[in-house]
Amino acid sequence: MSVKQTDGTAQPHHDANASYPGVGLVTTHSVALFPAENPLTLTSGTQLTNITVAYETYGTLNVSRGNAIFVCHALTGDAHAAGWHTSDRRPGWWDELIGPGKAIDTNRWFVVSPNLLGGCQGTTGPASENPDTGTPWGLDFPLLHMRDFVTLHRELSHQLGVERYHAVVGGSLGGMQVLQWALDFPEDMVNAVVIAASSRLTAQNIAFSAVGRQSIMTDEHFHGGQFAAHAHTPRVGLAIARMMAHITYLSEPAFAEKFGRSSAHDSSAPGFGADFAVESYLDHQGEAFLDRFDALSYLYLSRVMDYFDPFASLGALDKLRAHPVNFCVVSFNSDWRFGTNHSRGIVRALAPSGTPITFRTIDAKWGHDSFLMDIPEYSDTLRQFLRASEQRYPVADDTLRADLKRVAALIPAGSKVLDLGCGEGDLLAHLIQNEHCNGTGVERDSLAVLSAIARGVPVMELDMDTQLSEFPNDSFDVVVLSRTLQAVLHPVEVLTQMKRIAGKLIVTMPNFGYWRHRITLLGGHMPRSKDLPYEWYDTPNLHHSTLPDLESLFAQLDLKVARYIPLSATAQPVWLPHRAANLLAGSAIYLLTV
Amino acid sequence: MSVKQTDGTAQPHHDANASYPGVGLVTTHSVALFPAENPLTLTSGTQLTNITVAYETYGTLNVSRGNAIFVCHALTGDAHAAGWHTSDRRPGWWDELIGPGKAIDTNRWFVVSPNLLGGCQGTTGPASENPDTGTPWGLDFPLLHMRDFVTLHRELSHQLGVERYHAVVGGSLGGMQVLQWALDFPEDMVNAVVIAASSRLTAQNIAFSAVGRQSIMTDEHFHGGQFAAHAHTPRVGLAIARMMAHITYLSEPAFAEKFGRSSAHDSSAPGFGADFAVESYLDHQGEAFLDRFDALSYLYLSRVMDYFDPFASLGALDKLRAHPVNFCVVSFNSDWRFGTNHSRGIVRALAPSGTPITFRTIDAKWGHDSFLMDIPEYSDTLRQFLRASEQRYPVADDTLRADLKRVAALIPAGSKVLDLGCGEGDLLAHLIQNEHCNGTGVERDSLAVLSAIARGVPVMELDMDTQLSEFPNDSFDVVVLSRTLQAVLHPVEVLTQMKRIAGKLIVTMPNFGYWRHRITLLGGHMPRSKDLPYEWYDTPNLHHSTLPDLESLFAQLDLKVARYIPLSATAQPVWLPHRAANLLAGSAIYLLTV
Repeated sequence: MSVKQTDGTAQPHHDANASYPGVGLVTTHSVALFPAENPLTLTSGTQLTNITVAYETYGTLNVSRGNAIFVCHALTGDAHAAGWHTSDRRPGWWDELIGPGKAIDTNRWFVVSPNLLGGCQGTTGPASENPDTGTPWGLDFPLLHMRDFVTLHRELSHQLGVERYHAVVGGSLGGMQVLQWALDFPEDMVNAVVIAASSRLTAQNIAFSAVGRQSIMTDEHFHGGQFAAHAHTPRVGLAIARMMAHITYLSEPAFAEKFGRSSAHDSSAPGFGADFAVESYLDHQGEAFLDRFDALSYLYLSRVMDYFDPFASLGALDKLRAHPVNFCVVSFNSDWRFGTNHSRGIVRALAPSGTPITFRTIDAKWGHDSFLMDIPEYSDTLRQFLRASEQRYPVADDTLRADLKRVAALIPAGSKVLDLGCGEGDLLAHLIQNEHCNGTGVERDSLAVLSAIARGVPVMELDMDTQLSEFPNDSFDVVVLSRTLQAVLHPVEVLTQMKRIAGKLIVTMPNFGYWRHRITLLGGHMPRSKDLPYEWYDTPNLHHSTLPDLESLFAQLDLKVARYIPLSATAQPVWLPHRAANLLAGSAIYLLTV
Repeated sequence: MSVKQTDGTAQPHHDANASYPGVGLVTTHSVALFPAENPLTLTSGTQLTNITVAYETYGTLNVSRGNAIFVCHALTGDAHAAGWHTSDRRPGWWDELIGPGKAIDTNRWFVVSPNLLGGCQGTTGPASENPDTGTPWGLDFPLLHMRDFVTLHRELSHQLGVERYHAVVGGSLGGMQVLQWALDFPEDMVNAVVIAASSRLTAQNIAFSAVGRQSIMTDEHFHGGQFAAHAHTPRVGLAIARMMAHITYLSEPAFAEKFGRSSAHDSSAPGFGADFAVESYLDHQGEAFLDRFDALSYLYLSRVMDYFDPFASLGALDKLRAHPVNFCVVSFNSDWRFGTNHSRGIVRALAPSGTPITFRTIDAKWGHDSFLMDIPEYSDTLRQFLRASEQRYPVADDTLRADLKRVAALIPAGSKVLDLGCGEGDLLAHLIQNEHCNGTGVERDSLAVLSAIARGVPVMELDMDTQLSEFPNDSFDVVVLSRTLQAVLHPVEVLTQMKRIAGKLIVTMPNFGYWRHRITLLGGHMPRSKDLPYEWYDTPNLHHSTLPDLESLFAQLDLKVARYIPLSATAQPVWLPHRAANLLAGSAIYLLTV
C-alpha cells in the first residue's frame, strides 16, 4: 500500500498491515487570530493580540456543516493528530483513532485539530516573541486558564465556518478542555466526549506536576525562564520531569509486561547507569521529549490543570440545563493518573443538570496512555457514540419482551426513567422513541452497554451494589429494576438507593414460592424453572424470595405497593387473586411508591 | 509527664499525652567490626575492613538471651529507632511501635537497631573515608547486595552476645533484610516479621528509583560522586529525588486528607511557586531531607533494592525447609509502592517451604508510610504475634463446637491442615496442640484473625473466592471448609481449588432440604432455622443447597464421598439412613477424597 506524496512520488505507508489507509499526507496550517483591534481577553484580564494558531483538518466538511468534530490534545500533544506530516513524515498522535473507517471516521467526519494556546508547536505560547520586548516571553507570558483555550478554539471554529460541532472530543487535558467548553457554550456542540480526564486534580496529581516543575525551574540553565537568551536550555530538568510524568502515564502491569526486570541491551557491569530495560526506556523518553517540547510550555500547561475546577463556579450547570449536550465520559480501569474516580467525579457533578450521560470504564492495561490506543471496546464506544444520533432505530412494540411491555405500560409518557440492569436498552429505547420519555440505563455487561450506546440510549457502566450513589436525590421520576434484585449482593441497600433516586419504583422479581419450586424442594432438590434456570452452585441469583417475603421487605422499607402484576411462568401477565399468586406466579411486577 | 535527662534536669516528654513513656534518652553506640585480619567479603567479592557500625539498644537482654528482637530500618532510616537522642533530643523513627507497653514492648524485649552498611548515619558507607586514598569513597565504594547487610547484622549480633533472636523485624527495605536473613540463616531467629516489603521490585518500582538517581547524578554539583571535595553537594537533585519518592510513600487518599487542594499559607499571587499546600509540604520534605541524608547512600541503598530477588536463587528455600521460621507478612491496603501484591508474592514464594506463615492486609489509609504508624490493627498484630509463642494455651476438647469435634475426629494425627474460614482458629488450635498437626487458617474477619494470631495459629487474611491460588498444589493433607461453602460467591471454583491443594476435603454445609425448610416454603415463605438464621435479603448465605444437590456437585467434580455425617438442627451428630438425612438433617459433614 502506498500513498501519494504532494510531489507525486510514492511513499510507503507507515504501517503496511493496517486495515485502513490513514488520512495520508497532511500539512499543518497556521492562522493569525485576534488582531490588535479585537484582542483576546484572558480569564486573568490580560489581553493578547495577533495570536498564531497551528491546526490541521482531516476529511471534508459537508454542505450542512453538521459533520465537524473538534479534537483537543493533551499536555504534550500538538496539532498533528493524524496522517503523515509533509515536513518530516511523522505519524499523528491519534492515528489509532482518526482515519478512514476508524473510530473517528474521516470518511464521515470533518476533523479539526489545533495546537493549544501556550503550546510550543505552532500556536502562540511562552516561547513566542513578546511584542513589547521583541524577545521570547518566558515567565512574562500571562498565566492561562482552561477557559482561554476554549476562547481560542471558538475563534478558530468561526474562522473555519463551523458554528456547531457534531462532537468535541479530547483525552486527559484535552478532555478537560471539552468539559469547560461544554459547560460554557453547550450550544456549540451536540456531543461531548471526555476521556481519561478530571474536573479537579487531587493533591497527589498536583504533587507529581509540582516536582516536575521544580525539576525544570531548579535546573542551572533555567535562568528564570529566559534561557532562550543563553547557550543552553534546562534539558536536564525537563528530561527528569518527563521521565517522572511518564511513569504515571503507564500502569504498573503495563510496565511489567513491557519490561519486567529484564536488563538493558547495552548494560555492562551493574552500577548506576541504565542496567534495567525500563531505565534505558525512560532515558530515551526523557531525551526524545527534549527535541519536541519546551520547558516553559510544560510549566504553563501543567499549571492550568492544577487550577482547573469548573464545577466550583456558581451556576456552573446553568447553561447545560438550558442546552443539554450528550456526554460520553470514558475512563480506563488501569489509569492511576486520572482514573475512574476522576471520571465518576465528572459524572456526579454533571448529573444534577439532567444532561444525558453515557459512562464507561474500559478494561485496558495501558494506564492513562490507553486513551491514545486502539482498544476495541474503547474505539467501538467512540464509533458507536458518534454515530448513534444518525442511526437511532425504533423498537417495534412487538419486539419488546412481554414483561417489559407491562413495565412500560406503568410508566407515564414524558417520564424521566432510570433503568437498572437495562441490558441493551430495549425498555428505554421504547420509552424514549414512543413515549417521549428520557432516561438512563445502568448495565455492567460490556456488550450490552455497547448495543445500548449504538442505539442512542444513555447508559452508565456501574456496579449496582456499590455505585448508585452516583445519582442525585430525586433525579428521576421512575426507577426500574427488572429481574435483577435477586442477583445483587445487597438487596436492601439497592432498594434504599432506588427510593432516594425516584418517587416511583418498579421491581420485577422471580418467585421462589412458585408451586413448581415448592414441589421440587419438597422432593428434596433445589428448584429450577424458566424463572430460575440455573444450578444452585452457578446461579447469579444470590437472594431468593417468595412474594410475601418480598412484600415484607417492601413494607419494612416503607415502600407502598401501588400496583402488582403477577406473571405466569412464561412471563405472561395472568389474573390471580393475591393469595394465589405466591403459589401460581413465576414472577411478579411491583409498582412501588415512597 | 517528664523524663530525667542524663544531667538530672527534667525535660518535657515529646508527647505529653502518650499513654506510655517512651524508652527515654538514648545514645547511639559505635563498634568497629571486621578488622584487617578478618575482612568482610561482600557478595561482589570485594573485601572491606574496619567497618564502623552505629547501633542502639532498648530494654534489657534477659539471662537466657532469648528475648532479643532485631530491627532493620528502611531506605532513609537510621539506628535511632526509639527514644530521644541524647545529642539533639530528636525522636526515634519507630517510636510509635517501640517502647514500654508498645507493640514491640521494651519491658519484655531487648531491641537492637543498627544503621545499615552503605548508610550515612554512623555506619560505613560511600561517604566514609576510603583507606586507600584518605578521601571519601564516592562511587568507588563497592556495590552492595542485601546479603551484605545480613553479614554485618550477624557480626554485630555476635558482638552483642545474641545467638538467636526471638524475632527479626523490618518494614520496606528493612523487611527485605529480614527476608534475606531468614532464608539464609533461619536458625538465627524464631520469628520473622516482614512488613510492607517486596521480594522483587516491579519495573515501575525500579523506574521511580531510577528517575530519583538520575536527578541526583545529573545535578551540576554531583561531580561524578566526588562532591565532598567541592563547595557544594547535589542538593537540588537529592531534594527532587526525595520529593518524588515521598509522593510514592503516601496514598492518594492520604494526600487528599492531608492537603486537599488548599492553598499554601504563604502563597501570594498564582504562579509557579508553592501555590498549593501540598507543594509547600513537598518543598519542606525535600529541604529537610538534605540535612540528614547523603546523595551517595541514596544511590547505593536504592540500587540494592532494585537487584533484590532472593527467591530466584536455586535452593532458596532449602535452609528454611530444615529450620522453619514463623513468618508474619504484613501489607497495607493503601500502599501502592510495595502493596499487597508484593506481600502476597512473598507468601506465595515462601509457601512451598512449608514454613508457618501468617499474612495480614491491614486497612490503613497512609499508604507505604503506614508501617511507621501506630495503627491499632497493625500494632496489635505485631504485639500478639511476638507474644504468641509465650502464651499459647490449650483448647480443652469440651470447648470445641460439637460439629468441629466431629470434623477433628476425621483428621489423622500429624496431618497438615488448611482450615478455610477458620474463625479464631479453634479447630486448628485443637489439632496443633492435641493431635501433633500443623496447619494454617484462612479468615477474613479481622478480629477473628487477631485472636488466631494471639493463640499462635498461623492464619492468612485472604478472600476465599479469589485468592486460594496462593497455596501450592498438594501442599496440605486435609483442607476443611466448615459451614462456608454456601457463603462464597463461586462454590465450584472454591471446591476446585480445595481439590488442587489437598487430597482430602472436609465440607460441612447447611441443608436447605431440612424438613422445616420445606414446610416453611410450602407455606409460601423463605425458610429460617438455627442452620439458616438470616432473612433472605441480608443473609451471607448466597448459595443454598439440599444434600442430594450438593452430592451431585461433588460427583460432577469427581469428589468421592468417603464419610458422611448428618447433624441435627442443633449440630449434634445423629444416626440417619442416607435417604432420610436430606429430610431430617439440619446440616451434614462430608469427608471427600480426590
